[in-house]
Amino acid sequence: VSDLFWPGAERAGGLLDQESWLAAMVAVEQAWSDALADAGIAPASPVLTDLVGPGDLTRLAVDAESCGNPVIGLVALLRSRAGGLGAEWVHRGLTSQDVLDTALVRCLRDAVSRLRAEIATQVGALTDLIRAHRDTLLTGRTLTQPATPVTLGLRAASWLSGVLDAADDLTALTFPVQLGGAAGTLAAVVELTGGDVVAARGLAVDTARRLQLAPTPPWHTNRRPLTRIGDALVACTDAWGHLANDVLIGSRPELGELAEPAGGGSSTLPHKRNPILSALVTRAAITAPALASTLHLAAAASAEERAAGAWHAEWATLSTLARRTVTAAAQTSELLAGLRVDPERMAAHAHTRWADLTAERTAIAEFRAAPPSAGEYLGAATAFTDTALDRARTWLETHR
Amino acid sequence: VSDLFWPGAERAGGLLDQESWLAAMVAVEQAWSDALADAGIAPASPVLTDLVGPGDLTRLAVDAESCGNPVIGLVALLRSRAGGLGAEWVHRGLTSQDVLDTALVRCLRDAVSRLRAEIATQVGALTDLIRAHRDTLLTGRTLTQPATPVTLGLRAASWLSGVLDAADDLTALTFPVQLGGAAGTLAAVVELTGGDVVAARGLAVDTARRLQLAPTPPWHTNRRPLTRIGDALVACTDAWGHLANDVLIGSRPELGELAEPAGGGSSTLPHKRNPILSALVTRAAITAPALASTLHLAAAASAEERAAGAWHAEWATLSTLARRTVTAAAQTSELLAGLRVDPERMAAHAHTRWADLTAERTAIAEFRAAPPSAGEYLGAATAFTDTALDRARTWLETHR
Amino acid sequence: VSDLFWPGAERAGGLLDQESWLAAMVAVEQAWSDALADAGIAPASPVLTDLVGPGDLTRLAVDAESCGNPVIGLVALLRSRAGGLGAEWVHRGLTSQDVLDTALVRCLRDAVSRLRAEIATQVGALTDLIRAHRDTLLTGRTLTQPATPVTLGLRAASWLSGVLDAADDLTALTFPVQLGGAAGTLAAVVELTGGDVVAARGLAVDTARRLQLAPTPPWHTNRRPLTRIGDALVACTDAWGHLANDVLIGSRPELGELAEPAGGGSSTLPHKRNPILSALVTRAAITAPALASTLHLAAAASAEERAAGAWHAEWATLSTLARRTVTAAAQTSELLAGLRVDPERMAAHAHTRWADLTAERTAIAEFRAAPPSAGEYLGAATAFTDTALDRARTWLETHR
Amino acid sequence: VSDLFWPGAERAGGLLDQESWLAAMVAVEQAWSDALADAGIAPASPVLTDLVGPGDLTRLAVDAESCGNPVIGLVALLRSRAGGLGAEWVHRGLTSQDVLDTALVRCLRDAVSRLRAEIATQVGALTDLIRAHRDTLLTGRTLTQPATPVTLGLRAASWLSGVLDAADDLTALTFPVQLGGAAGTLAAVVELTGGDVVAARGLAVDTARRLQLAPTPPWHTNRRPLTRIGDALVACTDAWGHLANDVLIGSRPELGELAEPAGGGSSTLPHKRNPILSALVTRAAITAPALASTLHLAAAASAEERAAGAWHAEWATLSTLARRTVTAAAQTSELLAGLRVDPERMAAHAHTRWADLTAERTAIAEFRAAPPSAGEYLGAATAFTDTALDRARTWLETHR
Repeated sequence: VSDLFWPGAERAGGLLDQESWLAAMVAVEQAWSDALADAGIAPASPVLTDLVGPGDLTRLAVDAESCGNPVIGLVALLRSRAGGLGAEWVHRGLTSQDVLDTALVRCLRDAVSRLRAEIATQVGALTDLIRAHRDTLLTGRTLTQPATPVTLGLRAASWLSGVLDAADDLTALTFPVQLGGAAGTLAAVVELTGGDVVAARGLAVDTARRLQLAPTPPWHTNRRPLTRIGDALVACTDAWGHLANDVLIGSRPELGELAEPAGGGSSTLPHKRNPILSALVTRAAITAPALASTLHLAAAASAEERAAGAWHAEWATLSTLARRTVTAAAQTSELLAGLRVDPERMAAHAHTRWADLTAERTAIAEFRAAPPSAGEYLGAATAFTDTALDRARTWLETHR
Repeated sequence: VSDLFWPGAERAGGLLDQESWLAAMVAVEQAWSDALADAGIAPASPVLTDLVGPGDLTRLAVDAESCGNPVIGLVALLRSRAGGLGAEWVHRGLTSQDVLDTALVRCLRDAVSRLRAEIATQVGALTDLIRAHRDTLLTGRTLTQPATPVTLGLRAASWLSGVLDAADDLTALTFPVQLGGAAGTLAAVVELTGGDVVAARGLAVDTARRLQLAPTPPWHTNRRPLTRIGDALVACTDAWGHLANDVLIGSRPELGELAEPAGGGSSTLPHKRNPILSALVTRAAITAPALASTLHLAAAASAEERAAGAWHAEWATLSTLARRTVTAAAQTSELLAGLRVDPERMAAHAHTRWADLTAERTAIAEFRAAPPSAGEYLGAATAFTDTALDRARTWLETHR
Repeated sequence: VSDLFWPGAERAGGLLDQESWLAAMVAVEQAWSDALADAGIAPASPVLTDLVGPGDLTRLAVDAESCGNPVIGLVALLRSRAGGLGAEWVHRGLTSQDVLDTALVRCLRDAVSRLRAEIATQVGALTDLIRAHRDTLLTGRTLTQPATPVTLGLRAASWLSGVLDAADDLTALTFPVQLGGAAGTLAAVVELTGGDVVAARGLAVDTARRLQLAPTPPWHTNRRPLTRIGDALVACTDAWGHLANDVLIGSRPELGELAEPAGGGSSTLPHKRNPILSALVTRAAITAPALASTLHLAAAASAEERAAGAWHAEWATLSTLARRTVTAAAQTSELLAGLRVDPERMAAHAHTRWADLTAERTAIAEFRAAPPSAGEYLGAATAFTDTALDRARTWLETHR
Repeated sequence: VSDLFWPGAERAGGLLDQESWLAAMVAVEQAWSDALADAGIAPASPVLTDLVGPGDLTRLAVDAESCGNPVIGLVALLRSRAGGLGAEWVHRGLTSQDVLDTALVRCLRDAVSRLRAEIATQVGALTDLIRAHRDTLLTGRTLTQPATPVTLGLRAASWLSGVLDAADDLTALTFPVQLGGAAGTLAAVVELTGGDVVAARGLAVDTARRLQLAPTPPWHTNRRPLTRIGDALVACTDAWGHLANDVLIGSRPELGELAEPAGGGSSTLPHKRNPILSALVTRAAITAPALASTLHLAAAASAEERAAGAWHAEWATLSTLARRTVTAAAQTSELLAGLRVDPERMAAHAHTRWADLTAERTAIAEFRAAPPSAGEYLGAATAFTDTALDRARTWLETHR
């Protein structure tokens, strides 16, 4: 699960790697087989869970090309290895897309669950950071130039609001089972139930329950469940990319306002402390939108009862997007947990350009022919910061 | 508002064109000016609404380059033309981004409102189509090849579910006001209120109310409100692209199962009846994901209190995306309103390959050593269709 | 041609706007009509040039929707307004795509011509900058952190090499005529020549000559000529985005090493001097790759003798991409012409961290147990700079 | 190298997988070490080639995160395992980016070499196909509807021209070595040569020669060499996607004009023969443009002497894009090698709609008041076909 091309990839562990996808496919076949047996349709449900494993991956992947997907090979393997009563009932009534989509959704559910845990950690860290720097003066900068004063607390509150928005999007996701059979009618399943449509749909509901996924009608040609997940993942990398930008800028030595917990080294420069976590999070933010756009293109290319090519484009795209998002999540958590702040440098920079930073106040005073306010010209900064903290508190109470 | 490069663009009317954006900016300045006057901060609020118009567009656009956005020029124009009491109070406390973002959101709100109306029309048309063809036999085709039988009702139910998913996404959108001043602290406004933060925030809430937008803290560096809108717009074009694909396929003369209400002509072929609406909707579906990905990239490039370039990339991208989505909406509505169905051709194709279409049933019968079911092997097609119709009915009751 | 949503758009003048595209379509019809008449096939060729104009744009654009493109309406207009001998011969033998594609290519040729002129200006400005700062010490920064010393000359040489690479890509482009008739066989033209295929192809060659475009076989379903143009345009915005990034960074007051010729103002902050040109160039660089990817998607969606939707997606995408690239070109030229350099600040920053910047040298000395070199530790910086200047000189000699 | 998420991935063999990239990095270190020793700078050059291998991948990948790239860990490993004379000289003078970029380019060179071989095979197959069907009548279809007659030879000539355009783009690529040291000045190398800039540059040229890459000045911040490769790869998938679309359409049973050599099966439908190769090629064509756009975004985000994040985004993107392109190449070769054509069905469809297909001819006859031509109304189809065959012949003579 590590990847020389994507340092840090192992942070995603087995989430949405080949092995866990294969295991999820087996879990789907198992749940279906169990549902068939419990309903008295199949004579028994063999234990499938340990019948295939990492050692089968290469063969299944290679065999997948001739049919376009790995399910046919998997079913053959499961039936032959299961043997005995019920073995030949495995997969009966389903189609490849049922197994593949449902397994993909299940893996995505686990990845999103991990993301929500990371976000909870981040919200905690951001809350601490904001509280600690609620009044830390910082040069507000727009288009790279000094504008008016802000606080580090307020800037971090903006990071927090992006993270919480992404969290809300993750929370709103549903993870639907895909069970429709060859063309989305459950015809084979109805055939197996002797024409009992209610029983057939009941099997789908039961299978969803076993897999802890949402029971829904087939969505084999309506891919919004997947594009919604993709959009929510990009909302995450957008939010983290935003805050990583600020760390990258702030850790320039000429600014020196922020620093990563531990900088990365160089192969030739002994003194280097590179803001590596921020760079790697930025990398995810640069690449994620294009991946999500591919999911939309695939969705828009949906046709008839299953699209040729568009469907096949989704798997690697979602796996890559989700794994990278999880990696970026963990890197962001680490970054926030140890972010170093130099309030003195922040104050020094602000005071160096105090006239500029408060030129607006001076102009207002002239306009009103009234004396300018005293103090740091921070407006509602603290109030906005507290609003963000309130939102975080509520979110944490609900989601932790 | 018509566009030689994008036939049908005039269907979007003035939505998100330059003129309506300018008018929205004036409306924002008006609302703010009114709020200032009502609160007793400004001595009066001049009527701004008719002070600038289409005739000012070129000058404002050209002048916008030197500052990067059109608000500075607009404010100068408004103040000079308003004259009299309160004129110099126009825009006091705000920054360009407040006016520009809020105006953009307001225009997007109107575009989304139009989209929801079009979708209501489409849901009505699809409901009629599905009801009329609940039992119309159709060859289920996966990866271009015959699979098992479906009904046109079921296929159209899949179109409908995509449209309703997009509708849900549109409904979930919020349209927040942007009011934060130079660096998101409302410092200038607090200065104008004599240091009263509560009053300053109250002005923002009052302005939001006047503009019928959601009052929220500043989101100048957290662009999720805009990327959510972009994602929802692409969900629309995805759903319409999907159904347009099916019309394009079905209207091939060798299939002849579907036809557009009136085909488009050719500059040299007298007999041609091209499925133009479907082609134009497909065009939107091909181009929309890339535009939405640009919004995400801009969001991820957010930095400090305002990003250089990323913010500027949003305006044309959103305008283009929203206008094209509205155009595609209207074209889809027209397409669905007059979609022609040839049930005889559908039945003929299905019966020509009936053995193939029911081969799965035969295989099940062999497997079970039981006679196959009689009838059309449609499984739960009707039940799934009715579920979709129920969802449509509920949606229409709630949203019409 | 100005655009409130894209400040600076008027810098592209009429290039690839609706009016010039329409004029190009008329020019194509004229060239074809002239070729037909010169070959003795048509009895005469009416003068078409002034028959349609900006006043027809709306009508033509609106009428375009029913057929999917504006050519049918245009032909009808030209025939009816031309009247007299030859009027009915206008467009005979052609199809809409011939006129539309050829006109688009012709407009793109003009845009690329403008780009090459801008690049010549930029190469001149960069050459001057590099010469002036061949020895100006600058902190080399990698991943935002000080690395080893460089010169401003060398950094600008890197900008230059990107610009020259883009120039090479523009130079390598061809601008082919599209003349294939309804399905790419020139069947109607051959019919008009009484079955003389050589004469029919000769008409195409003659038309290409009149339009100063490359004569080629039809490429109606092989869109590489257009994607190559798109890729080359993005190579331009990539190169300019790169240098704009460096200006944005260098113009932060904490660095103060670079500054735009004249900064942009703010609607509320009197002191602000924003690096607006860099911000606007960055905007183009953020949005261009997605547009070019759309052209590729359209190319890949090509089918049979003309794709439904994919073809239609190209026009606005190319127009937008080309116009924005021209605007960014002009902005970059202005930026480079007046770029301000502060060698003292550069030197001061370098000297502040001189131990870090030369830590590698110290490490080498230790490794070799030999004394470190004296001087600025600039390695081959000057040599590389001179190589870049040589390339620029050669390029300018060839292309100016 | 197989991938459950991307069936067929093993067709790319080891091209641009982790193992070959690691091997290429070692080859770069070896070449540099040899150059140093041959120049008398290092006392000796240890044999590095077998010092690291697949067993080190995980450790190197995991260790890579803390510095952001795997080179530091690799150098440590090489030095410690090499031991003896010259071991400590490994990597001296280089920076991580030198090794990583050069290794990437070398892997890309190999991938492009494989692509060119596949394309040669395809050009051969297409030539055969075109020759065999130079006169095979086919319904010309535009926007899905019958237009005028074409031949299968002509349509395949259009596929061929796309493939040859892509081949030209691949041929035009250069594969430059990256050797610039920490900030692109070769300062450390010049230090090692005792201040001899010419000798330092000579080492770079010698290293390029050993690696069979082009010697060029450093391009560490000008990424056009990589985006050009990306653009050329997408030109390939565009061309193959185009022809796969035609196979997908033609293999619909209602058309039945084309068929894949061997269709893919289904997990539940015994009769299914899915056009799997076309579907899988389409998958590559859908996903490639977004990946290439990411390379452009990374190029445009280049900054100072090395960008944080943008550089890191390139590796996985290029690896994925290149491997998928190679896989699609091999699948396309197989598709073309065995493409089945049904000339009778083609003729039957054309004759069924002969009046429509020749309506243009009838209209011309009426217009000219002259009798229409006899025959198949194919215009210059054969001539264009032969032009394409000529181009293929020339290309094959040059490139085989």
